Amino acid sequence: MNTEPQAVRYHERGKPEEVLTLEPMPVGQPGPGEALVALRAAVIHPSDMGMIGGTYGRLPDLPAVAGREGVGEVLAVGAGVSGLEPGQQVKMPEAPGAWMQAVVVPAESLIRIPNNVPVEMAAQAFINPPTALRILRDFIDFKPGEWIIQNAANSAVGISLIQLARHCGLKTINIVRDVATWEPILKEMGADVVVAEDSGFEKNIKELTGGAKPRLGLNSIGGESVIRIIRCLADQGKVVTFGGMVGDKVRFPTRNLIFNDVCLCGFWMDRWVRTHDQAEFEAMQAEIYDLMAEGALKLPIDSRYPFDKALDAVARANAGGRKGKVLILSDWKG
Amino acid sequence: MNTEPQAVRYHERGKPEEVLTLEPMPVGQPGPGEALVALRAAVIHPSDMGMIGGTYGRLPDLPAVAGREGVGEVLAVGAGVSGLEPGQQVKMPEAPGAWMQAVVVPAESLIRIPNNVPVEMAAQAFINPPTALRILRDFIDFKPGEWIIQNAANSAVGISLIQLARHCGLKTINIVRDVATWEPILKEMGADVVVAEDSGFEKNIKELTGGAKPRLGLNSIGGESVIRIIRCLADQGKVVTFGGMVGDKVRFPTRNLIFNDVCLCGFWMDRWVRTHDQAEFEAMQAEIYDLMAEGALKLPIDSRYPFDKALDAVARANAGGRKGKVLILSDWKG
Repeated sequence: MNTEPQAVRYHERGKPEEVLTLEPMPVGQPGPGEALVALRAAVIHPSDMGMIGGTYGRLPDLPAVAGREGVGEVLAVGAGVSGLEPGQQVKMPEAPGAWMQAVVVPAESLIRIPNNVPVEMAAQAFINPPTALRILRDFIDFKPGEWIIQNAANSAVGISLIQLARHCGLKTINIVRDVATWEPILKEMGADVVVAEDSGFEKNIKELTGGAKPRLGLNSIGGESVIRIIRCLADQGKVVTFGGMVGDKVRFPTRNLIFNDVCLCGFWMDRWVRTHDQAEFEAMQAEIYDLMAEGALKLPIDSRYPFDKALDAVARANAGGRKGKVLILSDWKG
Repeated sequence: MNTEPQAVRYHERGKPEEVLTLEPMPVGQPGPGEALVALRAAVIHPSDMGMIGGTYGRLPDLPAVAGREGVGEVLAVGAGVSGLEPGQQVKMPEAPGAWMQAVVVPAESLIRIPNNVPVEMAAQAFINPPTALRILRDFIDFKPGEWIIQNAANSAVGISLIQLARHCGLKTINIVRDVATWEPILKEMGADVVVAEDSGFEKNIKELTGGAKPRLGLNSIGGESVIRIIRCLADQGKVVTFGGMVGDKVRFPTRNLIFNDVCLCGFWMDRWVRTHDQAEFEAMQAEIYDLMAEGALKLPIDSRYPFDKALDAVARANAGGRKGKVLILSDWKG
């Protein structure tokens, strides 16, 4: 096989179905100090759509290659590159973008992922599980057995949090819209309680937990959903918002801020990476790789598309009713 | 004069005009270790109405004496009381309540206010100015010349903040509804910028400050007003909510929480007092007494009512268009 590698690009910002195109994007042989990396699997995030559409907090120059996260394989290295062998699993570079079948980059810029991390988990190791891990670690100094509450519990961050919380000896209340579908799946992953958004769970939170109130809430929805979480929290609790699926108007929770001393913060993995050093980043990732390698951290896959069907994969990712992430796979070998 | 002292009481929670009554509440002579204190001035707060109505974060047993704050004068002390003389200015005890013309309490429970603090300022020394001082001190580590933004800038906390910020070398953007009335008053007190709520100031905040964005916002309104403040803040800024006049629905500011790392916190002076020791409390109050005594911290008075017109005072406090606090005065001497 010696086909020209393809990339998913956009020349203007807008709706993905209107601006994304599949284009050839040739690569040469790696020069001195460089490596040729071929994409193996890329995951599609809602924030990819925000970046393509121009609403995300950080935007690439145009034209851009779409995609924030994926895993590649080193195919060849140039002169003077040592300690990096063909076959090594690496994170796809963020610039120009992850959704390209092949790219030549400076070898030293590559982030290695141990080859014992399953490729479809490696493709998701850098955004969602670290977000869950950081929120779990950086906002509340937990005692063992404490409770955490989260909405969108069937999201990749939500599912990561369930497993990481269990790993850390903490318990989770998981809010979803479709309990019938998700309760068995989330419980199998270690969820303690699964409740429906509109079930009124916030009125008897202590019955669900056996008397405790959570001190940490995770919100990636907003609107009424975040207000329900705020109502469940213990005094001095914190709600950490890291995403916003819906923006419906709600009454601003003045009372809870003042009398319950609840604090509303945000978390953005992008900023964390930019504001922490390499050693901290690597230590965090090593923890995630280990859990993924031993099967303690798994993320469900909704569907898999070959690279030449990447635009179909995006359409599927933007459709409702997914049961996990959509992956774009590639076996390009030059 | 030897009339029976009166108190403003309520036997059930509800609207002040329906539940408050002026009733005689006799006092005896102070016993061993006790002091007889006579009210001199009490200030009427919106939170007094919350307490009477049952919506405040902490509620007294019924029947209750209304009023959270006032200043009294020691009229007599019982056997064994030393270091407390008649004529000493003291804070009215919070329990049973401040709006009573006379009360006998343990002398050691009294909080002294230096007699050089003007009585009408002493009556307001414990809730609003300390709230402004703590929010100024406890949330952001300011550099000199930084900006603070606040809504309800013509409130007692707002006016305290203007003066305290200037005292600390900080600058203020002050949001009010009625600029024509308040701009001259607030500027005379040290306000740097005064803007109208609906003027669109949030669109060109840097023009108002000469390029800087505030890192601290104070909110006691909620609704659209707090969203405007959030939009003005620098990344990593904080909005501290300490009151809530209106509760209209707004879009929850997910984007600012995540991408701008803005944090929404609450502050409740009540909790601060309960969670800090006596020495910290006294040090804070001493700072406020000094500023009040030297005239550097002044709060405007809308109107003054004698104690037998206390219910009219409450009606005035609840009417719109006030220019300062309403005071209830008493000259009862036993």
